[in-house]
Amino acid sequence: MSGARPLDGFFFEDFEVGRTFRHAVPRTITEGDAALYIGLTGARQPVHCSLPLARAMGHRAMPLDDFLVFNVAFGKTVNDISYNAVANLGYAGVRFGVPAYAGDTLTCESEVIGAKANSSGKSGVVYVRSRALNQDGAEVLSWIRWVMVNARNAAGNIAQVPPLPATVVDVAAPSFLKPAALDAASTGGARLWEDYAPGEVIDHPGGMTLEEADHMSATRLYQNTARIHFDAFRAQGGPFGKRLIYGGHVISVCRALSHDGLENAFAVAAIHGGSHANPTFAGDTIYCRHVVLSRGEIAGRPDVALLRLRMLGAKNQALPALATPAPGEKNPAVVLDLDYSVLIPRRQKP
Amino acid sequence: MSGARPLDGFFFEDFEVGRTFRHAVPRTITEGDAALYIGLTGARQPVHCSLPLARAMGHRAMPLDDFLVFNVAFGKTVNDISYNAVANLGYAGVRFGVPAYAGDTLTCESEVIGAKANSSGKSGVVYVRSRALNQDGAEVLSWIRWVMVNARNAAGNIAQVPPLPATVVDVAAPSFLKPAALDAASTGGARLWEDYAPGEVIDHPGGMTLEEADHMSATRLYQNTARIHFDAFRAQGGPFGKRLIYGGHVISVCRALSHDGLENAFAVAAIHGGSHANPTFAGDTIYCRHVVLSRGEIAGRPDVALLRLRMLGAKNQALPALATPAPGEKNPAVVLDLDYSVLIPRRQKP
Amino acid sequence: MSGARPLDGFFFEDFEVGRTFRHAVPRTITEGDAALYIGLTGARQPVHCSLPLARAMGHRAMPLDDFLVFNVAFGKTVNDISYNAVANLGYAGVRFGVPAYAGDTLTCESEVIGAKANSSGKSGVVYVRSRALNQDGAEVLSWIRWVMVNARNAAGNIAQVPPLPATVVDVAAPSFLKPAALDAASTGGARLWEDYAPGEVIDHPGGMTLEEADHMSATRLYQNTARIHFDAFRAQGGPFGKRLIYGGHVISVCRALSHDGLENAFAVAAIHGGSHANPTFAGDTIYCRHVVLSRGEIAGRPDVALLRLRMLGAKNQALPALATPAPGEKNPAVVLDLDYSVLIPRRQKP
Repeated sequence: MSGARPLDGFFFEDFEVGRTFRHAVPRTITEGDAALYIGLTGARQPVHCSLPLARAMGHRAMPLDDFLVFNVAFGKTVNDISYNAVANLGYAGVRFGVPAYAGDTLTCESEVIGAKANSSGKSGVVYVRSRALNQDGAEVLSWIRWVMVNARNAAGNIAQVPPLPATVVDVAAPSFLKPAALDAASTGGARLWEDYAPGEVIDHPGGMTLEEADHMSATRLYQNTARIHFDAFRAQGGPFGKRLIYGGHVISVCRALSHDGLENAFAVAAIHGGSHANPTFAGDTIYCRHVVLSRGEIAGRPDVALLRLRMLGAKNQALPALATPAPGEKNPAVVLDLDYSVLIPRRQKP
Repeated sequence: MSGARPLDGFFFEDFEVGRTFRHAVPRTITEGDAALYIGLTGARQPVHCSLPLARAMGHRAMPLDDFLVFNVAFGKTVNDISYNAVANLGYAGVRFGVPAYAGDTLTCESEVIGAKANSSGKSGVVYVRSRALNQDGAEVLSWIRWVMVNARNAAGNIAQVPPLPATVVDVAAPSFLKPAALDAASTGGARLWEDYAPGEVIDHPGGMTLEEADHMSATRLYQNTARIHFDAFRAQGGPFGKRLIYGGHVISVCRALSHDGLENAFAVAAIHGGSHANPTFAGDTIYCRHVVLSRGEIAGRPDVALLRLRMLGAKNQALPALATPAPGEKNPAVVLDLDYSVLIPRRQKP
Repeated sequence: MSGARPLDGFFFEDFEVGRTFRHAVPRTITEGDAALYIGLTGARQPVHCSLPLARAMGHRAMPLDDFLVFNVAFGKTVNDISYNAVANLGYAGVRFGVPAYAGDTLTCESEVIGAKANSSGKSGVVYVRSRALNQDGAEVLSWIRWVMVNARNAAGNIAQVPPLPATVVDVAAPSFLKPAALDAASTGGARLWEDYAPGEVIDHPGGMTLEEADHMSATRLYQNTARIHFDAFRAQGGPFGKRLIYGGHVISVCRALSHDGLENAFAVAAIHGGSHANPTFAGDTIYCRHVVLSRGEIAGRPDVALLRLRMLGAKNQALPALATPAPGEKNPAVVLDLDYSVLIPRRQKP
């Protein structure tokens, strides 16, 4: 129970497999949060910006940006799960459920599904499955992540690594959704599902330099309490000597930058896996490349389908000079490597 | 059609006279945007801050700040019109139409009304008339601007310069408006239309130092995608070696600073002309001087009238030491020179 | 009357005892302001974040954060009271009245209750009692503060120091309030009124480095016009050589940092006294310590009671190494010293 949280947070020893957490501070997300999200990221997906378009697509209101939801939900888990984390190692099985709208209230819960002590005994990897529910109990998001967490005293020798899904399967589109309403005049792009071919590389033209005030405002908005993002005095004695930018902010910035080139990819359906491959700091300029991995159909939906994409976030590096790293290959310029699927309209037969 | 936009944007050759654009990403402006606008500019015109006052003045809700509307509308045009711009050269014929309120959705369209190749052949000046419409199709704003745009290959020798209005004529006040409701206790100032004399100079006392995070947040809020405002890495190789602050943010800051001294100038009616006379960078401190140009009446309105004003934005320069530049004269401390008209109540005869 | 405000603001000579001010720019606070407040401070008290929880506690909507209200109300007074202030010296008798909700409109008024010229004759201390009222005329906040204000010419020899209350008495809890609804799963902490003992010291684990853009955005959001917070060019010639951070922002940050350890202290009831003990500048990292001063009951309320707390804001100083200063003792690392009372649920007998 969260009520038992120590003031200095939980450590590796506290994460016995099977332990559950109901995370504090339920959050009613408002139009104000949505506006600030645009201000901090430059997000432009029109379904999140235009009420008439959102309604034409079958929504009852403008849905909140998928990564605003992701970051708020993720933020709720930090105080319990990763307050004493050394690094956020990876994601798997991230599934976007019912859309969230301004006025919805998210609560989050987590279960420890694995733990593996490091050989040093000073830390270990904790695997958690988390869920965000709305005020009606419907699942808005569920995800697995694993983090390296410091031990309070000694990590012991536990080694329970859970199976991790390589792909989120059975991804659907909401039955109410009318993707045909997403017109090129609204999105700025005419390319639909059929127009993207596996192997295609898209180097998005924009770039975004990140400032301390920006990433801290974003991370505070998500009520993420990890000290490494906020406390420059303490960070002087840490591994980087300075504040680290929350990786979720980098994802949001990449998603926003990628609007030009993926104009009709109107929703994120799932994140199959991914990692923050290198740290990002204030002053870094972020660029985004996408590689089209595959196209997938959705049963019973002739109007909408899936693109599976690899999102690469690069820093301080002109994209034409960037060699796409092979899976698992390290490139110091690559800070984000995400394998995910988006919903995009199909061209309807007349 | 915007759907045909190339990933690297349009170049000078693409702007044939008569071409029209319907700009992407319609935007429902919310109370969140209005709050962020105050946070980024310090705007204090009370009709935008106080629901009871707005209603007493005849509005159905708090109208959105004129320059929030201007900047959002302008931002929509950037991805098509000025993505490859070298410089934003000037404005003319800017007319504020029906007020916009939180919940209204703006869409924008532009028509190329002129084009003139530079003698170098590497760029040219493009003249566009743009309009922002609300969800009912009513015109919220229309404006002409001209920008220098890079050629993709060669600019050719086109030289079609359109006639530009020197003055926006037939400016009206909304018929529902009750300007007498604007009391000095709400605005902080007692001076009305009769109290300003042509030639009067007002040096507003405040100053605002601009930060990278501030101007980028503002410009992202407007979904303005011009890379020069966001990408410090790329800007190293550009004309300034660093990011340039979006000129519309400077206008907003000057408007906010000028509240003390123009307390009752409750709405912008038109911008007759203007230019960003010098670049502004993070770290610059902005001050604002107004020169009263003339007073104008509005037919049939004994309760409200027009002040035509020259707004000068100066940087890093105490205003008492600033010589007001003659029209056309360059002064490196002057970054903004705007010729515009505001609505202000008249003193009613008892 | 505010209408008579000179462009360069009021000076010491203008503050005759008994003079009243109705401060300009009434403000309708919105959900947008509340979102931005979270983004700028990281505030996490769940009654301000969760509509279901707010309703379960008896509120008709999410109440606005107490220090958002405080800072907006305070901000209204600055243009009249402290535009030419040298320093904000202290607070007393700060009483939080009816809660404020998004959509409420605050207006503020002040009365000069004392004035004391400094022996130099160049400045003096002005004492004011201020009140913020909502649109129904109900008192949301009232407070006394005293500031050192420059004289325009000569401060004279006035010496009228008012009596200042050492304690705000007769603090109540709203009759509609159901504090038992505040569950540990929502707040993240299980400690209630009975669990805090006088003398207990809580060193909150988080820290927050303040940036220029952050404190300026917060202070602009409050429409506080004091130039020392915004104008780096002018500040070069001032006492610090740089911008000073508005003290109310430091209070907000400390309140946010203190959530871990005071999870159930859901509302601020009163501020008995306090001062900004040292200046705070951009780049400083703020930490927060609380010392429990006493516990107080509220007549007729077995469900909620008061903790009187001393809030210390420290900068650039690990808390374990900080010696709590004796009352009146100066410590250069301590920037904030506040004596205040919070509402916190009592443990109900089953």
